[in-house]
Amino acid sequence: MIKTVGVIGGGQLARMMIAPATALGLEIKVLAEAENSSAKLAASMIGHYRDYATVAAFARTVDVITFDHEHVPLEILERLESDGVKVQPCSSALEFAQNKLHMRRKLSELGLPVPDWAEVHSAADLDEFLQTHGGVAVLKTPTGGYDGKGVRIVRSSADALDWLELGKVLLVEEKVDFVRELAQLSARNINGEWQAWPVVQTVQADGVCSEVLSPAPKADQARAAEIAKAIAEGLGVTGVLAVELFETVDGSLLVNELAMRPHNSGHFSIEGSTTSQFEQHLRAVANLPLGETSALSKFAVMLNLLGVDEKNTFVEHYTEGLKILGVHLHSYGKQARAGRKMGHITVLSDVSMDEARQRALEAKRALHA
Amino acid sequence: MIKTVGVIGGGQLARMMIAPATALGLEIKVLAEAENSSAKLAASMIGHYRDYATVAAFARTVDVITFDHEHVPLEILERLESDGVKVQPCSSALEFAQNKLHMRRKLSELGLPVPDWAEVHSAADLDEFLQTHGGVAVLKTPTGGYDGKGVRIVRSSADALDWLELGKVLLVEEKVDFVRELAQLSARNINGEWQAWPVVQTVQADGVCSEVLSPAPKADQARAAEIAKAIAEGLGVTGVLAVELFETVDGSLLVNELAMRPHNSGHFSIEGSTTSQFEQHLRAVANLPLGETSALSKFAVMLNLLGVDEKNTFVEHYTEGLKILGVHLHSYGKQARAGRKMGHITVLSDVSMDEARQRALEAKRALHA
Repeated sequence: MIKTVGVIGGGQLARMMIAPATALGLEIKVLAEAENSSAKLAASMIGHYRDYATVAAFARTVDVITFDHEHVPLEILERLESDGVKVQPCSSALEFAQNKLHMRRKLSELGLPVPDWAEVHSAADLDEFLQTHGGVAVLKTPTGGYDGKGVRIVRSSADALDWLELGKVLLVEEKVDFVRELAQLSARNINGEWQAWPVVQTVQADGVCSEVLSPAPKADQARAAEIAKAIAEGLGVTGVLAVELFETVDGSLLVNELAMRPHNSGHFSIEGSTTSQFEQHLRAVANLPLGETSALSKFAVMLNLLGVDEKNTFVEHYTEGLKILGVHLHSYGKQARAGRKMGHITVLSDVSMDEARQRALEAKRALHA
Repeated sequence: MIKTVGVIGGGQLARMMIAPATALGLEIKVLAEAENSSAKLAASMIGHYRDYATVAAFARTVDVITFDHEHVPLEILERLESDGVKVQPCSSALEFAQNKLHMRRKLSELGLPVPDWAEVHSAADLDEFLQTHGGVAVLKTPTGGYDGKGVRIVRSSADALDWLELGKVLLVEEKVDFVRELAQLSARNINGEWQAWPVVQTVQADGVCSEVLSPAPKADQARAAEIAKAIAEGLGVTGVLAVELFETVDGSLLVNELAMRPHNSGHFSIEGSTTSQFEQHLRAVANLPLGETSALSKFAVMLNLLGVDEKNTFVEHYTEGLKILGVHLHSYGKQARAGRKMGHITVLSDVSMDEARQRALEAKRALHA
């Protein structure tokens, strides 16, 4: 029986696992990189996730390892597994969240809808792809990117000389003419049980998620869920799986990115769903039955609170922000920095999405975020 | 600005404050009596709340002191306050939660409905009260009682010789012929803002709360709220105030007990209300605006999970219990003991109270609790 869950990474996702772990009576321990992490309340060890000895020592204090982020090197995870440590999601699934090239190849093999893509080993490869795709494409480093980093729009191989010089294989994809971005959150446990939340609409600003609407208005819920289930099963994912999707003009869906952990697009579920993504992730990795994902209101809006500068945290403005009716505030307890995710707010409504959104925006303004 | 809230007592109420404190970005520190307390995740100091030096040292690490229980001696709280420590609720309010005789006197002065009562200094006092109240009454020790302890049904002063011998003043009350028990939860902040949840029905077994139905079917919501508001204001309460009420045959309400902290009868609010009693208590004592208390479903049922014996904790049965749809489980992480409050479950329903109750009972059975 799993009694202690170990989370690698001390960010806000680990922080938001504390509440459901406490409710479920699971002990939660966090391997944080620094003393003053977002999840410091549960931090039982400080050290780097790239150091095998650190991670192995941490693993000995818990019954299962899971993640706040996908940056733990695959070699470390594979070595833990061969030492008998339970890692959820397992390395053979996480590979596809860590490496976008492997992910594209695997999804194509599974017959799932993805943008056109190719491996790029040289400037010639890239120029050839550009010629057959209207002279513009999205170039990605297969590993290490997040929140818009490691992604670049290119119109010629000259736009990518710095990356090409590194001699590493790159991933090029067609620039999808999407009308909006969606995200399908779901979870799968070790027994293969699978549960999805409604597909949501995500709004990005400068490559960072700024807003999530649940459910995504007029979206093809069934198709999004079908894609997510095929990925969860095809890749053998345990825990929460976030599938970021492009919706094209004709309403069809293409898979953009994957994450195998709770995800920014699922924060609304803390208040908006019978079982939140954080509780569901813990249930899944602790080999418990999954919870029901029904919505507790017709509409939910989540807005990220981004840092303005190093001084201006929204904490000073709580009194104004918390006056707005029905505002659920989540502070991540992080040092402020311009553009940094400092917290989020969720507002539920049974009236309309717009009504929820107006209250959320009002609270965001009041919080000076 | 209050950034760190200190909670005296490491029980389940402190434990359940961890989640909203984390969300609000308030640091929570707990003074626990033992290493392995229910709230150990937030325990920053181990020591006894009856030791002034311990409590004063703890107070120096936080911005405001609040409580998991009402057992901290009044002298200690008054001394903290005279040393400039913020204590919420303050000692002048807590006096009435600690001393039932003072509470009865104060509520009578405020013209609030209470059972007939009298001070008992001698066997003669008690026998006189019994003669004028049908030969049966409820005798209470003014301080120190909880969950049925310190309360006794008496038919003659002979039933109370052991207590009378102690030479302390006792409280005697008429034995109210109530049809059911209700509880009105509300909260008041330092600025005098006040918010109530719906009045709930509580069901006791062996003097311990076993079940809570929210809202109490066909109850006089307005009258219950009016009484609670008069008490919160009349006694100068900060934070959550629980008013336990008797409902008599004619539907009128009499105040039974008070608690000035989150209360077992308000656990349903974690999932059932826009703002839970734990978040509201923190908002109130941290001088933040109170949150909205609207219900997220038409009906909510909370069942306590009591320990069966020292071995049989319900944890082993999670897999069966969590399969029941829509069950919100809260484990208190405590050592099992027969009759001990080990956790609770909440089930919401928009269909009927009975539908919620059936699912909750099914989960309780599956958990072997």
